[in-house]
Amino acid sequence: MKTGKKTDKVENLVRPLVRKLHPYTPGEQPKIEGLVKLNTNENPYPPSPIVLDAIKAATDARLRLYPNPTAQPLREKLARLHGCAPENIIVGNGSDELLAMAVRAFVEPANAVPSSKKARATVQFFNPSYSLYPVLADIHGAISNPVPLGRDFALPGLDELAAGKKWISNAALTFITTPNAPTGRGYSTAQLEAICRAQSGVVVLDEAYVDFSSEDAMALALRLPNVIVSRTFSKAYCLCFQRVGYFVGHPVLIGALHKIRDSYNVNGLGQIAAMATLDDLPYYRRNFLKVIATRERLTAALSQLQFKVFPSRTNFIFVQPPVYPASEWLERLREHRILVRWWSAPEVRNFLRISIGTDAETTSLIKAVNAILQHKG
Amino acid sequence: MKTGKKTDKVENLVRPLVRKLHPYTPGEQPKIEGLVKLNTNENPYPPSPIVLDAIKAATDARLRLYPNPTAQPLREKLARLHGCAPENIIVGNGSDELLAMAVRAFVEPANAVPSSKKARATVQFFNPSYSLYPVLADIHGAISNPVPLGRDFALPGLDELAAGKKWISNAALTFITTPNAPTGRGYSTAQLEAICRAQSGVVVLDEAYVDFSSEDAMALALRLPNVIVSRTFSKAYCLCFQRVGYFVGHPVLIGALHKIRDSYNVNGLGQIAAMATLDDLPYYRRNFLKVIATRERLTAALSQLQFKVFPSRTNFIFVQPPVYPASEWLERLREHRILVRWWSAPEVRNFLRISIGTDAETTSLIKAVNAILQHKG
Repeated sequence: MKTGKKTDKVENLVRPLVRKLHPYTPGEQPKIEGLVKLNTNENPYPPSPIVLDAIKAATDARLRLYPNPTAQPLREKLARLHGCAPENIIVGNGSDELLAMAVRAFVEPANAVPSSKKARATVQFFNPSYSLYPVLADIHGAISNPVPLGRDFALPGLDELAAGKKWISNAALTFITTPNAPTGRGYSTAQLEAICRAQSGVVVLDEAYVDFSSEDAMALALRLPNVIVSRTFSKAYCLCFQRVGYFVGHPVLIGALHKIRDSYNVNGLGQIAAMATLDDLPYYRRNFLKVIATRERLTAALSQLQFKVFPSRTNFIFVQPPVYPASEWLERLREHRILVRWWSAPEVRNFLRISIGTDAETTSLIKAVNAILQHKG
Repeated sequence: MKTGKKTDKVENLVRPLVRKLHPYTPGEQPKIEGLVKLNTNENPYPPSPIVLDAIKAATDARLRLYPNPTAQPLREKLARLHGCAPENIIVGNGSDELLAMAVRAFVEPANAVPSSKKARATVQFFNPSYSLYPVLADIHGAISNPVPLGRDFALPGLDELAAGKKWISNAALTFITTPNAPTGRGYSTAQLEAICRAQSGVVVLDEAYVDFSSEDAMALALRLPNVIVSRTFSKAYCLCFQRVGYFVGHPVLIGALHKIRDSYNVNGLGQIAAMATLDDLPYYRRNFLKVIATRERLTAALSQLQFKVFPSRTNFIFVQPPVYPASEWLERLREHRILVRWWSAPEVRNFLRISIGTDAETTSLIKAVNAILQHKG
């Protein structure tokens, strides 16, 4: 294909809004032999054998058929788990799809509202939190409102939010990652409830990591009509590959999302894998305890090596490393075939996010850190 | 959850645009024992054993990892197949996801453009064609421009389009289903090329059924910078369950779509299934010939029974049934446990769309039609 000369004209076929976008950068997925991959918060353990068997058993002539368009059997099972109705639930192609749909369903593009109604076009979130939110706002032509977290990344109280003058209590949509990423901090349900009650717009509590925490806020989604809780089978339930997440909330909000969803948005084997997962929750609860135990061991070891480690309620830790800048730790660990996550944004550039691996991977990490520190200076 | 009183207020949390939407109705997916399901154009034959084996072999601990975010290995394989570069290709969660993304990338919402620039907010398509297009336009707040097909659903030539005064040659986005659904008619590449060359906006040639036809328009996507060809693994390649489709086109258009895509939009087992499919194309080519032979047998049989059958280039036929209204045929066939597709829209309400099943299913259908005709009056 010849592109050279004509490219200018082809670019005019794309919306100006889209031309200007910077896409979200997901964590690397390199295929390097023997790599210890601690950069994208995947669970180090495999799915339950029951799940693997269920997928294999369904892999037959039925693949020619469309999957259930609304993931109805899965929604019924999730409804029983959470004590609500299937109408409270929508399943997505990963929770990322649902986060994007929430922006499209609840937030106006900025150029569609007068300047006095900017709140209706505002996507609000704490900074730092999941770096996808501003990307979703940009894609939709909405306004991002990042609000700084408190000292040591604590969730600000209502008084602090009011004093900070940045928080918008009628923002169309507010995302709160809880427990937070990349900081790992847990927020109390009481504190979340206070914020949700003070908001007149929709609040999505993004609980991607909640299974590694000690409390969750699901009750808020079933009690407060403006609150949605987001969950995923990716991290805690070892199914990143299969793309299944879900929202729980008021039937009117969930119904709005169903209206804008692709007809068959959740692949069939993903639905089957998620259903089988719910049949073996004790397997996953044991898995959570293992991850938490490893997390505490790593926290203790790195603290001893002069890392500042924030207390984590997730399957990763957020650390401020000693001696070298965080970006240099990223490179030095990579030389030891260990991949962690680092961002260049000013509020997080001094930190690394390290996913919790297996015990053996964690031992390798601690060894590598020791080696790097011993070669210093 | 208590909803009654508060519902009004909850509805205000949803964008007015979304509140007003009527969602697309996919064909039914009933689970009735012994049902002959000829309503959603699924392939009657299973995927290749090579595909099933590949999925099973990949169903292990790797499911805990994220899939390749850009479906890179699959795009490389598709690029070799079509004689282009991976940059010409984007893979979607079914081609439906990509059709929706095309609207968001290339079309402005109507309220974002002055009335003199309505074309920039226009999604154009022929009527009847895939009933999803106007739904996608509505979801985006864009303008639908359905343009009538010619006599017996023929593709109008440029002169006819000009004479009809409905066609907009600078519409931001034009969808052409080719071969068409629900009519089954094939359009010649020469005719498509004339339309594409005359359009200044993006044209998506939706070739969901092209493998059952005698020619395809892939060359246009690689020659004309404003043309995208849409393909899917669903129908011809027996993978509806796994949601894999793709677009081929100019790297600038494809790049725009990549920018607005969900980070991990294609599930991992779907990627693996699609790659294995490309390793066994002779299996599928034999399958296409079987479907085509069955289609011709059914066409002959129903023509003899006084059905008007349009010549089909797809894996379904579009028929005008005798004696009873089409809607009544839908019900009478259902009594014989045969499910076909009928729409209430005025331009198609006199017709049925019947997917091509196995030979045995086709024999059942012909028997049922005979029985219904014998009990007439």
